[in-house]
Amino acid sequence: MDKILHAIQDDYADDYSWCFGCGRLNESGYQFRTGWDGKRTLTIFEPNRVHMAIPGFVYGGVVASLIDCHGTGSASIYLHRKNGHEIGDGIEPPRFVTASLHVDFRKPTPQEVVLKAYGEGVEIHPKKWKIETEVYANETLVATGEVIAVVAPSTFLNK
Amino acid sequence: MDKILHAIQDDYADDYSWCFGCGRLNESGYQFRTGWDGKRTLTIFEPNRVHMAIPGFVYGGVVASLIDCHGTGSASIYLHRKNGHEIGDGIEPPRFVTASLHVDFRKPTPQEVVLKAYGEGVEIHPKKWKIETEVYANETLVATGEVIAVVAPSTFLNK
Repeated sequence: MDKILHAIQDDYADDYSWCFGCGRLNESGYQFRTGWDGKRTLTIFEPNRVHMAIPGFVYGGVVASLIDCHGTGSASIYLHRKNGHEIGDGIEPPRFVTASLHVDFRKPTPQEVVLKAYGEGVEIHPKKWKIETEVYANETLVATGEVIAVVAPSTFLNK
Repeated sequence: MDKILHAIQDDYADDYSWCFGCGRLNESGYQFRTGWDGKRTLTIFEPNRVHMAIPGFVYGGVVASLIDCHGTGSASIYLHRKNGHEIGDGIEPPRFVTASLHVDFRKPTPQEVVLKAYGEGVEIHPKKWKIETEVYANETLVATGEVIAVVAPSTFLNK
């Protein structure tokens, strides 16, 4: 799969769609989009030329950002399904925030390659999920990550 | 201190100064700058308005990026001093890359506040340092992080 057809971020409420990582309304951001790929979740992203560490290699902060939003998006997808809903069914999914983020950089990430982040989620308790992620550049595993994501508290929405 | 006068990134070789996080030559990047603040290292950064998670709060991927480059920069500062050199003395400092990054998000990070990342470094072995970081927004500890940084292998420089 080279394109996410149905992304959980497409279903977030507008108020939750300004994230620099995954907000569809933030035109300056990465606009990560996360969907299902079989039993795993998938986010596909090709870094921009400026997103480098040194010329030829992608900046780790961008990979970390990918893992971060892939984690919160995946948690939303998993809980949405547990609640009996699927992406695109017209029901607003739960919005998660990141409690912790861990990234192991395993290989330098080449530029001008599409990155694919695959995730598997485990429920820790109903409002807290752990997402384990593998990021591939072509066939190379360049980074692995773990996100602990929690359902966004209502106080986080600053209206 | 509200401004880093002498930053290690000012002394990186030009080839190592394109990082989206801390490269002084990358005009699209964050241009993080890291120096000494007493016995600790310090990076000061005010996120842009677009760097939000939701309106009013900073995106965690930007905080993670800050901790990442603050970590590699701090490792460079510590090893440079161990080697008998100081920022700005005309000797090119060692350039580190990130092996692993861990971030605990402790409080929502408010927007329109200058962030200060303070670091303490410990040598694991001569080419590998651990940097523990605390990020403050005013008096509030919003995130803590740990970076394992290693001296960039010569093969990483893609000439």
